[in-house]
Order: sequence, then structure tokens, then C-alpha cells
Amino acid sequence: MEERLRKLDHVFNPRSIAFVGATQGAAKWGFIVYNNIIVGGYDGKLYPVNPGRQEVLGLKAYPTVRDIPGEVDLAVLTVPARAVPSAIDDCIARGVKAAVIISAGFKELGGAAAVAEAEIVSKAEAAGMVIVGPNGQGVCCPGGKLYSWMPLFYPPPGNLAFICQSGNILNMLIGHVLNAGFGVSKAVSSGNEALLKTEDYYSYLAEDPDTDVIVSYIEGVDDGRRFFELARQATRAKPIVALKGGRTESGVSAASSHTGAMAVSGRLFESACRQAGITLAKTINEAGTVAASFVNRPLPRGRRVGILTGGGGLGVIAADVCSEHGLEVVELSDATLREIGRYLPDWWVPGNPVDMVAGLDLSIIKPILEILMESGEVDAILLIFVEAPRIGASTEGEGANIAKIWDMVTQQVATHIQELYERSLELEMPLYVTANLERKSGIGGTLNAAPRTMMIYESVEDACDALGHMVRYSEYLKASGIRP
Amino acid sequence: MEERLRKLDHVFNPRSIAFVGATQGAAKWGFIVYNNIIVGGYDGKLYPVNPGRQEVLGLKAYPTVRDIPGEVDLAVLTVPARAVPSAIDDCIARGVKAAVIISAGFKELGGAAAVAEAEIVSKAEAAGMVIVGPNGQGVCCPGGKLYSWMPLFYPPPGNLAFICQSGNILNMLIGHVLNAGFGVSKAVSSGNEALLKTEDYYSYLAEDPDTDVIVSYIEGVDDGRRFFELARQATRAKPIVALKGGRTESGVSAASSHTGAMAVSGRLFESACRQAGITLAKTINEAGTVAASFVNRPLPRGRRVGILTGGGGLGVIAADVCSEHGLEVVELSDATLREIGRYLPDWWVPGNPVDMVAGLDLSIIKPILEILMESGEVDAILLIFVEAPRIGASTEGEGANIAKIWDMVTQQVATHIQELYERSLELEMPLYVTANLERKSGIGGTLNAAPRTMMIYESVEDACDALGHMVRYSEYLKASGIRP
Repeated sequence: MEERLRKLDHVFNPRSIAFVGATQGAAKWGFIVYNNIIVGGYDGKLYPVNPGRQEVLGLKAYPTVRDIPGEVDLAVLTVPARAVPSAIDDCIARGVKAAVIISAGFKELGGAAAVAEAEIVSKAEAAGMVIVGPNGQGVCCPGGKLYSWMPLFYPPPGNLAFICQSGNILNMLIGHVLNAGFGVSKAVSSGNEALLKTEDYYSYLAEDPDTDVIVSYIEGVDDGRRFFELARQATRAKPIVALKGGRTESGVSAASSHTGAMAVSGRLFESACRQAGITLAKTINEAGTVAASFVNRPLPRGRRVGILTGGGGLGVIAADVCSEHGLEVVELSDATLREIGRYLPDWWVPGNPVDMVAGLDLSIIKPILEILMESGEVDAILLIFVEAPRIGASTEGEGANIAKIWDMVTQQVATHIQELYERSLELEMPLYVTANLERKSGIGGTLNAAPRTMMIYESVEDACDALGHMVRYSEYLKASGIRP
Repeated sequence: MEERLRKLDHVFNPRSIAFVGATQGAAKWGFIVYNNIIVGGYDGKLYPVNPGRQEVLGLKAYPTVRDIPGEVDLAVLTVPARAVPSAIDDCIARGVKAAVIISAGFKELGGAAAVAEAEIVSKAEAAGMVIVGPNGQGVCCPGGKLYSWMPLFYPPPGNLAFICQSGNILNMLIGHVLNAGFGVSKAVSSGNEALLKTEDYYSYLAEDPDTDVIVSYIEGVDDGRRFFELARQATRAKPIVALKGGRTESGVSAASSHTGAMAVSGRLFESACRQAGITLAKTINEAGTVAASFVNRPLPRGRRVGILTGGGGLGVIAADVCSEHGLEVVELSDATLREIGRYLPDWWVPGNPVDMVAGLDLSIIKPILEILMESGEVDAILLIFVEAPRIGASTEGEGANIAKIWDMVTQQVATHIQELYERSLELEMPLYVTANLERKSGIGGTLNAAPRTMMIYESVEDACDALGHMVRYSEYLKASGIRP
């Protein structure tokens, strides 16, 4: 990692922050971001900078950064673009180590605005100050209780890091990961990437002990060779799951007016990603789901998959999607099928997927799974719990208490999954479970679920996609001479 | 529609049901399905049949169907396969009009079991009785408060019909549609399709006034020519959204042991579906989402799309996915862009997508949308609201009340969407909105959201997929000489 990247420590764990443009006008970013820092519980020094105010939300305000008495690690800027250059001059004069420029109106506009951006960068470089942005939504580092960004949400700490060239996609990606029960180590909305590029953050995050997986949204790359070289170094340490925006002519054109991104051909980019070991997702949901899949789970050592399903149809879909990923839904040996058959009724048709024929007895799952795990015939196992949506009866007739049955089944399934995951870790056999155990919040909803130690999938297709990606990453590491 | 299919009226709206195999053993289908009929609020006559009991859940039991005093429209069977033939004999003797056989252990086992199934079918055909199943999970018809099926859930009435060769996929599909805020007209888990085939249900549902859209999961087709001919007739009346299981060798093999389905090559099936006007989805989620998209929305008249987005990155992704679907993210005229620009700040970069550059003022959306709608330059509009997940601050610092802001924004967005949809209907301009307005339940969760009149998308990719499918369906209708 380049030495200057150490300055990113001040972006994520600053001891003090100057907030340039802090205000109390509720519909302004200078209020929302500043307020997020306070609401998020940041416990370092916070200095609002606003020449027109004595104080902002109860903290003494300063006319400029130069007027701040103490040391300043990080400056966050939300002032209009025209006011940014002089504010950066002030930061440099004051010895500020890093700046997050949220303000828009630079390279994405071209012309004089692009020139202004370049000037800020060269000044900052000369002074040894790093800059995040401009035209991003900011950063967060939940472990340090820092939420210096636009959105009104405060993800819990975890071990996924996010580096995105779009704030709104960053939020969606984090949302998927949170819904899945995981948290965030660090998140950056890198905006125009005037100084630090996506690949710089990769280098930094690859060495970050709090980060296990890097999730990335990419619109453009300035220097392809540098990007893929640094990405390749990072993926040897930990997975990078990426989503590419600007895969088509229309997308590229939209990206260029969004962050002034350079066009990259979709096909070329894809193949370069493969060579650099980047896991490329097709949708926002897939990126979030696959990223969370890498947490706390051994990588598959080969392509042979065993499928254990509570319902035939979902087994068929799983077999299809696995095959479409180039995985082998292997034939199991007669001996293994015979052993499994001891737990299943007469009308069971032996095969892989192992269809547990809509049985209601959960206790057969563990022994069947153990037979599969210990068979030596598969490299990964997909376990599909079958559940229905929960919609109360419109008219309450007589009969059993459905809500109680739901609670009982949910509790039983949750307990089983926990046990099965523990067993899979003991045997180092990657296990992918689909089930629905809790109320979900959606991206815009309120999350009230407990954190997870291992991904549980809501959809069979998602589980198969994750498995396919993890097999390919495992093969990449092997080909790079690294034991997965 | 063939005359015998009118008998399906007795499956969905029976005045009386004989339940063969009704019991009180909680872990038996004979309890669960029977109990669902009661809990669901069925208000016709219900006769439990069980030679070993005087009554089941408070209702007088009969030793056989022959012993039931009144008329019986529908028989539901959950007894073991070996007991089914004589029960069907009883039904025929008693003049029962239709039977839903839930019991498994027939064609999917091959051999003698397949022969037994064929014998039941020929007896039923001779007697003019229709049979649903065997080896399905049953049926539901929420409008008639009939939930004669395995899963413990009771969808509200609506205008989507489901015909699936897998019970668990049926449940997942319905789950997606319910989460989206829509309800069910009729749902059939058709199992082995011994007598009635998927295409028979298409014919029936095409004429069902309560059904606007047909959703279907298909593993196999016995008579391809008949299937596609009846499907083609149905799609001229209303859309069929289908998911194919058994697209690969592994999937076909799994399907054959699941429902004894005949193999159909994935590629051939796909192209025949296109010719028959079937909308083919790639995943369970896509099938559910696309199906709900057809409800209450005019079809696009062409391929030109206008994108209006609250965030640049999501606009880029939308442009990509639209292009990948062959849609045109058209260049807007200077005049239209100038008009739109009046509502946007200096640093706005004119173009399509129209990027509203992270503004916080919702009131600009309606006028901009109206300019687009009335421009004559687009055939459909995608409107992307940008929201973040809602995760409370880990530490409550000072500052604004975030929960209140969330509620306010949600309420404003919901009101706006309602108004915009009404305007889009007035102007017959198909509108696709992505936003997240409520807590979601997930497939296994409890739904507590209000019903919707028009689909709102959680993901940009989902919205674009729906738009792509609807454009293709519109073109199919046009090519068939039908005004969309």
C-alpha cells in the first residue's frame, strides 16, 4: 500500500472533524450530514464552520477552518462548489490531514468546473492531504461511530467494506447486507474520485483488519492498468464483489454526466475483472447477497454440489441454476443414497437433489446432511427449507392457532440452522441454507432482526449464485497459488 | 374452453366439500389441509371422512364419501396412495363433481403406482369428474374463502391466478405478489397433472372474470402442441407469466423424479413460449414481480423509455438494464430538456436519464414527470425514488428526530406516488416507480402492508425487467392483431 493511503485512517477514525458548511436549515446537506455525525454518536471533537453563525446545533461555530483552536484530522465540506477551493486552502494552511468533499459541481460538469477540481487536487497532493470525493455522499465507519454522510441511517459495525462511485447504490448495497444480518466496517462514496480512486481504497481495505470482504460499485476507471493491478493484489487477500454501471452505450452516457466517468467497454471490463479475481455481480441485490456470503464460510474446494430440499420444485430450480453456473449436481453413490433413504419414506425417489418429499419432521435433516457432508462426494451443500408466506386468515374460523404453529416452526428451523452451520464449520464443508426466519425490512424499512454469523438466503437462485461465485473465487485463488 | 372445464367451478367455489382423510394428528396433511379449510373461513358444507372417528375438529365424520347425506361438489383427498382408488370409486358413486388429490405416490414413482394413477384418471373421465393432482398441495380461491391446501397461509383476494407444477414454488410466487401488495384470484398446485394439465387451467383462467394475469411454474409438458396452442389462445386474452423448471440436464432429471414430468429442452421451450406470447421469467422473484406489474397499468406502445431518477448511480443502472432489454433510452429534444431544466439547479447535466441530482424537494417531480409524459418523446417512464435503509443510530446523540424525518419523507413519497400514478392513468402513459415505502415481510414473514393498486418496485433492475417484458407482450399483441 502506498504510504499516503495511511492518511485514510484520518478519514475513518478522525480524532477531530471540521465541518465546513454546518447549518440548521433542515433541507440542506450541511444540516443532514452534520446532524448525522452528531446523531450517530461520534465522540471526537466536532467543529462546525460557518461564518454566519455563532453556533450550530449547540456547538460553537468558527468562521473558517483557520480559526479552529485545536488540531483537525478531517474536514468535511458541504459548501457550494465555488466556496470549496478557498476552504481547501484553509484546510491546508491549518494542517488538516484529510478532506471529504461532498459538494457537487466539479468534473461532472466539465469546463471550468473540471479545471477547478484539478486545481484542488494538485494543491492537496502538494500538501500531502488526501481527498475523498468530490460529489460523493460521504463516508461511514460504524466501529468509530462515524456517520459522516447524507443518508439517514446508521449501520452497525461488521466486516464488509463498501467503496462505491454512487451514493444511492452504496445505500442499496449496504441495505441488502444489513437485511441479511451483517454489518459494515467502512463505507466510502467516492464520487468523482478526483484524487483517491477506487483502486486506492481497495489497497487500503485489503490491509484493513476489520474488513473481510470488499463490495464495490464502479462506473469508470481512469487508469485501467493501475486499477486491475491493485485489484489483483487486493483479491489475493480478500474477495472484491463488484457491480459495474455503464455496461451499455446508454449506461456509459449516463455515467459520464453522473461522475464524469471514463467509458469502459462492458465485455472487456468483465474479462479483465475475471483475470483480477473480482467477483462481478449482475444486480445490486446479487452484489449485496454474494458479498455477505463470503463471511464466516469456508470456500468450496471443487464444483460438486449436493442439494437437500424440503420441496421438489425448489430442488429442480436449484439444480438448474447450479448447472447454469457450471457446477456439478453430482450423482451420489448407491451406498450414500441407501444411507439417506433410511430416513425417508417409501415413496422417496433416490437422487440428487435429495427431495425430502414435503416431510414435516425436521429431525431427519441433520442426519441426512451429515451423511452428505461425510460422503466425500460433494464439495458444497445447498439446503432448502420450504416455507410459506405468513398471511393471517381473513376470517377467524375454529381450528388450530396458526400464529403459534408459525412461531414454533420458525424457532425449530432457526435452531436447526444454527446447529447445522456449526457442524458444517467443524467439517469445513460449505453449507448454503435458504429459509425465511424473520420479518424483513426492505431497503426502506426498519431493521429489527438479530445479527447473523452466516448468510441465510431468501431465494434459491440467490444461494446458487453465491455458491457459483464462491467456487470461481476459490479456483482463482488456487490458480494464483493461494490455498483457499 | 372445453365443456368439462366448467367443472373447475366446483373446485374453486364448491358449495360442499368431502374431506377424505380428515384427522386431528397435528403433523399430518389430513389435519393441516382440513384445518386450513376451517381456519380460512370456508362457509359451505364440510364433511370430514374418516372411518376411525366420530368427529374431526367438531364436525361429524363419515366412514366413506358414500355415507355423506347431502350433495358433494368437491372431494379433497389426503389419504395414502393405496387408499385413493377406492375413495375415488366412492366419489364417483356419490356423484361428486371434482376431486383434489393431494396424496403423493403415483406417476412420480413409476411402475405400478403410475398404472394406478392412469386407472383413476380413466374412471374419473368416464364419470365426467375432474381431478386436480395427485401429488399437489391443493388449491385456494380467496374470493370464496377456500384455502384447501397445505401451507399455513391465507392470501387475500386479488386478480392474479397461479397454476404451478410445484407447491413450494407456488407459495414463493404468491409470496412475492403479496409482498408487492396484490392478491390472488385462484391458485392451483397441479402436481402430476394426471387429468387436467397446465394448459387446461390456462383455458379456464383466461375466461375467469376475477383473473387479470396468470402466473405459472412449468416442469414438463405432455403434449407440446396442445400446450402451446391453448397457451396462445389464453395470452390473447391476458398475460401468462411463466417460470420453467428443468432447463438443464440436472434440472430435468430432478423434475422427472418430482412430478414425473416429461423432459423439454430449455432452448426449444423458450422459443415456443415466445411464439405463444408467454412472458418467460428467469427467477421466482422475477416471475412474481413481473406478474404483479401487469395489474392496473397500460401497456407501453413502443420501446422509448424516459428515466427520471433521484440518484445518478441508479439512473446508470436503469439505463444499462433497459438497453440490455432492447429498450431505447431515447435522447430528449432540446425543448423538453430546457423545460425540465427550469426545475433543476445550475449544476444539472441535461440528458436522459434525467438526474434530479440528489435534490430534497419532492415537489419538482410532478411537473418534470408531466413534461416527460406530455412530450410525445417516450412510451414509458421509469421514476426512481432514492431512499436509504432505516437503521437507528447505535448511540442516541443530540440532534434531529430521525424517526420523525423518516415518517415524514415516507408519507410524502407515498402521496406523491399515488398522485403520479393517477396522472399516468389519465394520460395512458405507463409509469414504473421504484421506492420503498413500508416494512416488508419477506416470504416467511408476516405481511402488514396495505394492498396496492399498482406495482411499486424495490429494485431498479426489477422495474426495468418488468418494463422490458411488458413491451414485448405489447408487441406480441400488436403482431397478433390485438390492440394492446
